[in-house]
Amino acid sequence: MEAGDFSLFYMDNFTFYSPTYFVFGKDEEINAGHYVKRFGGSKVLIHFGGGSAQKSGLLDKIRSSLKNEGIRFVELGGVKPNPRDSLVYEGINLCRKENIDFILAVGGGSVIDSAKAIAAGAVYDGDFWDYYEGKTVDKALPIGTVLTISAAGSEGSGDSVITKEKGMFKRATTGEALRPKFSILDPALTQTLPAYQTACGITDILAHLYERYLTNTKDVEVTDRMIEALMLTMIKEGPIAVADSNDYQSRANIMWAGMMAHNNSCGVGRSQDWTSHNIEHELSALYDCAHGAGLAVVMPAVFTYNLKHDVMRFAKVAVRVWGVEMDFEHPEVTALEGINALRRFLKSIGMPGNFAELGAKEEDIDELAHKCCYGDVNTGTTGGFVTLNEDDVKAIYRLML
Amino acid sequence: MEAGDFSLFYMDNFTFYSPTYFVFGKDEEINAGHYVKRFGGSKVLIHFGGGSAQKSGLLDKIRSSLKNEGIRFVELGGVKPNPRDSLVYEGINLCRKENIDFILAVGGGSVIDSAKAIAAGAVYDGDFWDYYEGKTVDKALPIGTVLTISAAGSEGSGDSVITKEKGMFKRATTGEALRPKFSILDPALTQTLPAYQTACGITDILAHLYERYLTNTKDVEVTDRMIEALMLTMIKEGPIAVADSNDYQSRANIMWAGMMAHNNSCGVGRSQDWTSHNIEHELSALYDCAHGAGLAVVMPAVFTYNLKHDVMRFAKVAVRVWGVEMDFEHPEVTALEGINALRRFLKSIGMPGNFAELGAKEEDIDELAHKCCYGDVNTGTTGGFVTLNEDDVKAIYRLML
Repeated sequence: MEAGDFSLFYMDNFTFYSPTYFVFGKDEEINAGHYVKRFGGSKVLIHFGGGSAQKSGLLDKIRSSLKNEGIRFVELGGVKPNPRDSLVYEGINLCRKENIDFILAVGGGSVIDSAKAIAAGAVYDGDFWDYYEGKTVDKALPIGTVLTISAAGSEGSGDSVITKEKGMFKRATTGEALRPKFSILDPALTQTLPAYQTACGITDILAHLYERYLTNTKDVEVTDRMIEALMLTMIKEGPIAVADSNDYQSRANIMWAGMMAHNNSCGVGRSQDWTSHNIEHELSALYDCAHGAGLAVVMPAVFTYNLKHDVMRFAKVAVRVWGVEMDFEHPEVTALEGINALRRFLKSIGMPGNFAELGAKEEDIDELAHKCCYGDVNTGTTGGFVTLNEDDVKAIYRLML
Repeated sequence: MEAGDFSLFYMDNFTFYSPTYFVFGKDEEINAGHYVKRFGGSKVLIHFGGGSAQKSGLLDKIRSSLKNEGIRFVELGGVKPNPRDSLVYEGINLCRKENIDFILAVGGGSVIDSAKAIAAGAVYDGDFWDYYEGKTVDKALPIGTVLTISAAGSEGSGDSVITKEKGMFKRATTGEALRPKFSILDPALTQTLPAYQTACGITDILAHLYERYLTNTKDVEVTDRMIEALMLTMIKEGPIAVADSNDYQSRANIMWAGMMAHNNSCGVGRSQDWTSHNIEHELSALYDCAHGAGLAVVMPAVFTYNLKHDVMRFAKVAVRVWGVEMDFEHPEVTALEGINALRRFLKSIGMPGNFAELGAKEEDIDELAHKCCYGDVNTGTTGGFVTLNEDDVKAIYRLML
């Protein structure tokens, strides 16, 4: 063990800061105006996606709530899944023109991520994309969220992912200034989602948990156990929510699990992976598929490829989470069976299982692998659990055929 | 089911707000001054307990750290376990006289709870005890903590418990204003604790988890699983920490688990119990025993008495946490075996198991039960899981003989 490897073997020093005020439960969205006022907003940009927030009546509730508190607002809709830089620039200009002092994101992870980019860009003299190329986000307009899909965890994180249309690069940034001041989580708002989108969200949450579970830090039982707890919750509640959109309880459990999975309380003090997210981002950037659907195809391939790096870690999740019987003579069989159980679970909730089902093409593999490893900010490798080069990533994409 | 019982059957609406900045890891206490400055302190009261913080050199490190940042300070030591109102009054007077604008608690739960009481009282015109008789805490001086024992969870909560010397009443208050601005958690600082105090802390953390686990709210799988995760962590890491004070990893796991057990992220949206704490508070108020030791005696008695109220809940924790085989024909046998497993665990880490070992006396039972149910703010009953009257509480104390 080298001196510099210390952090790989013992729980690391860390800071944890999650100052978001969470308001959870049925009908809480009617209090949006109250919370905007409490956190200092007087002129608000309401940021949202397509027509569903309008059709469901949610936007009208939000407008009424703001009006009741005497808060002025302007609106910017049109956020698409895998949110684009072009709309971010539009939002930044709008904020400056209208002297916006608070951004209210009404939607899922894409809307919240777009709102975060606008919030940072509106108070920055340079190009907001600098933040997605490595610059630290040190200031941003305050934002609040009204969440409509359990998936990204963006409602409780300082993270944001944006796609640059020129070249279709999908890149992430993070910063404490991007953590929402408040987030309203009403599980009932997710009941209008199609089963497929519900399943995509469940897959994304599971991925956030696996990315943290796959660590090289030893003896971090407390966070291992918390991750397993949230995985077990998703495995029990996920299929219920997909099968019956009227079931409030399963959606409530999933919604809190989705936030806890990504506010990093279960990821502190340990190295993390994020290989699956990095490899998936190239798929959703190129094919505009749902991020969760992409992850369903990517995760089993990545885990199978990396299994030999730490068989016992994959065996641990297989036994504790997937209920696989431990094969003490052949732990690699147990480890592999855990990956198969994940694959069967994802199929059971309607997720794709390979390139064809996702709409991805074999002939793009070289380009995908190159962008993943050498994209505008990367340096030839990817992965926190195993350091993978371009050839490794190509091999992983081939496992998805 | 009555309309008013709604909250007992579905996940409740709730708010969750944990804005404390946690700084975790070895040697982080040398940054205390940095964080005091960051959170606005310029004239600090350092509040601490007995001589151990002095002897270990911890106080000197804190003083140096404050001096390095140019922060002035005064000191008030002498906090005892089961902290008293008399020292709180002294602290309030000192804060006013010295124009203190930040309180830094250096110690365990007793020191932090005492600091919270001083912080609230220093900016309140009336008697601080009003807050411990039901008045809402709406303002307080900012506080920071440097934690030296994993137990109370006060470093990440808005709770405080103080004992009024006149009549020896032990009462609690809570309020968002009491949540620390920052908390420094260095697991190495807990390595100087005697094994007995380490075990008392482990017991207190387990109790915080049981108080939340024992709920009448149905289908709250996400928080059930999170509580179980933290219990399993304590069961694995607790005995290691008690056996070997030099083991950093077990203390690191316990320290994060202790915070997560009580910041309420695993208790939201569900009814909670707090019977064991209420019944224990009378013991530590009267006999000045360690709170954790009292809980070790109280918990098995309370759980045995309440078992019939929800056999399957006690069976669930027995199977999932204590590894008891489910007896499908006699679930009450499984439930009882879970309580026995808890009793054996507590004995194995050196905790007392009955009144005699705790130093409590049978002839005081009537007084204890009466104070618990009719103490200066109570109304004849106690308990969130099962509503218990004075006769019930007497019967529970008798189970501890």
